[in-house]
Amino acid sequence: MRHTSFVKAICCIALIKYLGLLDAAPLIPLLLSLILTSDIDLCLEALVVVSWNVSCRDARIARCIRAEVNLTISHTVAPVGSPEAVFKDRAKSLSRCVMSLVLARAELTGAARHKNLLGCHLHICSENNFPTGAGLASSAAGYACLVFTLAKLVGLEGDISGIARLGSGSACRSVLGGFVHWHKGSSPTGCDSVATQMVPASHWPELRIVILVVNSKQKMMGSSLGMKRTVETSELLRYRIAESVPSRINSIEEAIREKNFRKFGELTMKDSNQFHAVCVDSFPPLFYMNDASHAIVNFVHMYNGTDVQVAYTFDAGSNACLFVLEENLSNLLATISYVFPPGNDSVEYLRGMPVTIPHVDKSDLKLGMEPKEAGLLKHLIVTRLGTGPQVVEDHLLTTAGDPKHLARETTLGTPWV
Amino acid sequence: MRHTSFVKAICCIALIKYLGLLDAAPLIPLLLSLILTSDIDLCLEALVVVSWNVSCRDARIARCIRAEVNLTISHTVAPVGSPEAVFKDRAKSLSRCVMSLVLARAELTGAARHKNLLGCHLHICSENNFPTGAGLASSAAGYACLVFTLAKLVGLEGDISGIARLGSGSACRSVLGGFVHWHKGSSPTGCDSVATQMVPASHWPELRIVILVVNSKQKMMGSSLGMKRTVETSELLRYRIAESVPSRINSIEEAIREKNFRKFGELTMKDSNQFHAVCVDSFPPLFYMNDASHAIVNFVHMYNGTDVQVAYTFDAGSNACLFVLEENLSNLLATISYVFPPGNDSVEYLRGMPVTIPHVDKSDLKLGMEPKEAGLLKHLIVTRLGTGPQVVEDHLLTTAGDPKHLARETTLGTPWV
Repeated sequence: MRHTSFVKAICCIALIKYLGLLDAAPLIPLLLSLILTSDIDLCLEALVVVSWNVSCRDARIARCIRAEVNLTISHTVAPVGSPEAVFKDRAKSLSRCVMSLVLARAELTGAARHKNLLGCHLHICSENNFPTGAGLASSAAGYACLVFTLAKLVGLEGDISGIARLGSGSACRSVLGGFVHWHKGSSPTGCDSVATQMVPASHWPELRIVILVVNSKQKMMGSSLGMKRTVETSELLRYRIAESVPSRINSIEEAIREKNFRKFGELTMKDSNQFHAVCVDSFPPLFYMNDASHAIVNFVHMYNGTDVQVAYTFDAGSNACLFVLEENLSNLLATISYVFPPGNDSVEYLRGMPVTIPHVDKSDLKLGMEPKEAGLLKHLIVTRLGTGPQVVEDHLLTTAGDPKHLARETTLGTPWV
Repeated sequence: MRHTSFVKAICCIALIKYLGLLDAAPLIPLLLSLILTSDIDLCLEALVVVSWNVSCRDARIARCIRAEVNLTISHTVAPVGSPEAVFKDRAKSLSRCVMSLVLARAELTGAARHKNLLGCHLHICSENNFPTGAGLASSAAGYACLVFTLAKLVGLEGDISGIARLGSGSACRSVLGGFVHWHKGSSPTGCDSVATQMVPASHWPELRIVILVVNSKQKMMGSSLGMKRTVETSELLRYRIAESVPSRINSIEEAIREKNFRKFGELTMKDSNQFHAVCVDSFPPLFYMNDASHAIVNFVHMYNGTDVQVAYTFDAGSNACLFVLEENLSNLLATISYVFPPGNDSVEYLRGMPVTIPHVDKSDLKLGMEPKEAGLLKHLIVTRLGTGPQVVEDHLLTTAGDPKHLARETTLGTPWV
């Protein structure tokens, strides 16, 4: 007897960034944060195969688990501050932890199938088609995917964002679509620190997201470890929590409801900058943005002039997420392609949604916009607001529980559907 | 009749950074700041030749003035916010402005020689032996030098830091040696915003300064324009002014008086980081530090481990100033030379004070300290606390008023005296 489920999860991009976790064990944000979810073309895929009565499948399980570990190894999924030894064997404890949570929750809600799962073997395979450990919330998408899949398996209905949060703080945001709130909650256990949808993706269908993946040799610090350091050492964070974020959350909500791109863009950029400011104010300082990121920021401000046609945000990494309205997308992409020419090894420079790009030459550009050195960007991914995790038909594991491709090629070049 | 004066001025390095000018016209800092001055080996040289009864020397004057402009053109010396047109012809207005101030002050204090100067021609020649426009306060050193020289010319004695401030905000600090306070003052005209010496250079003779000049193609925004933007747009600056700086000033003063290097170093690094944090929080954000600067910061923290043997500070540029005690200098330099190998075009990689450097190889280094790509740093300059501007014997102009070398070679390679 075998049960399979396959889910594509979404990547989420913080607009007003939650920086800082209140407490270690239950991952609760210091702040309410507002998140935009991007569509499934920027996705993480997970398959869980649960097999019964199969003895001695250890070798295979180890292989499958390894695939999952590949995703999360660059992130700190262990509760911050807990003894490291406990989470040394991360893969197993992870599976146990999340699974037991799902089982507990299923029992609580009287879900039908959980009892059949006791004592079973879990084959987990996870792949993602965007860079991990690069501040694009891959671990969040991974956990959201895993929890969503497990919930489907155990027949758990309803809100699973609280469970997802226990795996990776921001994972609770990835289980929903559109614009999402991550609430701080008031319970010390974190049980009310959940995500809720502010507006669905259909509210602003014209909004486009362009991810600029930069070429970087730099090793990044995992975002959870970084956040811990910032909470402990940044003096400026106190001001950010007390003053800046609360007023910005209100303003950006208003901007989203009104679909006021100028206001939305300016607040998003300012909050991204302030997030990185408190990272720099940490001790030792955290530098997530690099020279390529700085070049993108300067490009956006030069492109905009006194208007706001495009806005940037950077999570805990050097890659940029740009926001732009559909009507301005093709001109933006054309200008980016001119100013940031691809390197020699850039195949499929432009990925995601297909866009017709007009020809741009120097005379179309603003004064001072010169092409940068080739290859500063690895590639661009065009996407739009996400609609949340979805069960899809494709599988990552064979019906025997073996991974189909341990190192599958990226699927980002495939046409948008 | 001819009068000449030649002065070497000092470069100053802000420890607790004053960021933000209260008002445009009289350059008054928003904050009291504490500055360390470095010795004259990191110097700016200026010569003023005043010639009488010389008709039609325009061509020569133009050449001399041009040399002076070369120094200041990359800086905003015009009062921030004033109509740009007024300062279009920067060289002339500059000379006039500073000269008239010196004359006025001389008149006020009854200095003897000022009347002889009326209607004379000024030949000004200025050279510096460290990078301009790179956040090493070259314009401050330049103005300090010019004002000090002019004061000598007109026979003005006593405090000239208030006059120097009118040229470049931080120039008032460069006219003194040792550790210097720049006071905010309370007068709206800025007349009491002057610099005073906290302790002379002789207080901490063991302190060494290592300037790491990074290879950078990046164009920097002038520090005055940048500060204006930060004051106008950074929300975090308010917290910095109200909370962080006042307490840090007290603590670092204590650390300096006690010669407590650990405390001194930690505060210096934290304040540098916070300064750059509020720069990043500006809108559009200001990125003075680049990938090379980040590599230096990470290097220092790795080198220190749990101790503080070396500390960094970055002004409005990508170059680093490191502080270290004499006893640890040679090991630090050896490690830097290993981790940051010189590029092919680096001549005289190590400049300034002569230091015997022990051999270092990989086994001497801490885990994870790998050599970076060659040429990340252009060169290193070793110096110590400065003793203030000094009249020296060498001249930049011939007695006829012509510049000796319009593009003179750097003298930084010459032995320390």
